Amino acid sequence: MKIYDMPGFPNPARIHIVLAEKGLAAQFDFVKVDLFSAEHKQPAFLAKNPGGVVPVLELDDGTHIAECIAITEYLDNLDGHPTLTGATPRDKALIHMMQKRADDWMIDGIGAYFHHATPGLGATLEAYKSPEWAGRKEWGERQLEKFKTGMRYFDSVLAQQAYIAGPQFSVADITVYCALLHAAFVGITVTGDYPALAAWQAKVADRPSVKNRGGQS
Amino acid sequence: MKIYDMPGFPNPARIHIVLAEKGLAAQFDFVKVDLFSAEHKQPAFLAKNPGGVVPVLELDDGTHIAECIAITEYLDNLDGHPTLTGATPRDKALIHMMQKRADDWMIDGIGAYFHHATPGLGATLEAYKSPEWAGRKEWGERQLEKFKTGMRYFDSVLAQQAYIAGPQFSVADITVYCALLHAAFVGITVTGDYPALAAWQAKVADRPSVKNRGGQS
Repeated sequence: MKIYDMPGFPNPARIHIVLAEKGLAAQFDFVKVDLFSAEHKQPAFLAKNPGGVVPVLELDDGTHIAECIAITEYLDNLDGHPTLTGATPRDKALIHMMQKRADDWMIDGIGAYFHHATPGLGATLEAYKSPEWAGRKEWGERQLEKFKTGMRYFDSVLAQQAYIAGPQFSVADITVYCALLHAAFVGITVTGDYPALAAWQAKVADRPSVKNRGGQS
Repeated sequence: MKIYDMPGFPNPARIHIVLAEKGLAAQFDFVKVDLFSAEHKQPAFLAKNPGGVVPVLELDDGTHIAECIAITEYLDNLDGHPTLTGATPRDKALIHMMQKRADDWMIDGIGAYFHHATPGLGATLEAYKSPEWAGRKEWGERQLEKFKTGMRYFDSVLAQQAYIAGPQFSVADITVYCALLHAAFVGITVTGDYPALAAWQAKVADRPSVKNRGGQS
């Protein structure tokens, strides 16, 4: 099986952490997609993922799976013992609820801010992502506010429980953690205003799956 | 168990179809949330779902589950025989991939258009959803383009396979179908430009779970 990705980017990092948590990395070949030459916006890659983003999982039968939550569902269920997406109906529901909030408020929030309200990946690449329009920068700034609302929300959640979706580490933790990686790259860090979020971030950073990613992403 | 919702709205409709597909509706009490008086934006409801939207599932232990995909994971796994979210790792992955595309491109696209580029639910209620800002209307129009890109994409998918995520009906079909319900309310219908999508829409409309929803939503 193959994973198309790009080291150092926040969404590929999500899947590297999943693989490390599950001990599955050795089963996959990693194919680097050159985001800086917009390889992910060309027909050959769009045939794999019409969304034009990495990562993409390619199964041995040629099926392409895009979207981190979908790739995670595949990997987490591969050994019949899901640990990141929940085993009971209640756990599955809580994890998917928090995962969707993390995607919508955190991943999408910081991504939209980066691509619309900052120089992002530079004018040439941003032409694919966010062409110029009148409200572009204002909209990006509004998305940063959404991201900060998300930080306040998850801080309040983590003041009550050990992890994002309950007492156990789950895919929702990986999603929030990698959104914060992206935010740090843009200069937005978890300050003392978010004490529970900061303590959780330090705890997650210390997990072997996160600490030992090395240069992979 | 309870479901907080509002008859006639597209996201509540998603869960009514899930319940009908699974034959589970009789196990739930339905509590109407008065969206027209902004009940869903008041503290009592926000304590149940900080996202401030319906539907919300309340379990007998008091746990609240928001987000349609999370509610669907709960309901679909309740009887140990998931039929809408996939049984194998590959099916789960394909369904979650298509479900996320359907949420991002279709549900979010038409919702943002409705709330930003049309009068939406009227000035009083829209103040909660999309306060005035310079690029508001232009951004809404751009989201309609995203929705139409989604229609073209799903039309191309349905030219190749019977349902959105493969040969079987799944939660991704329910999501796309209900996004099209919202679109029709806004005056955007599936025309002859989308022949496979139109044929699929007619087929889904004829399912008992969809046809017999009656006045519920």
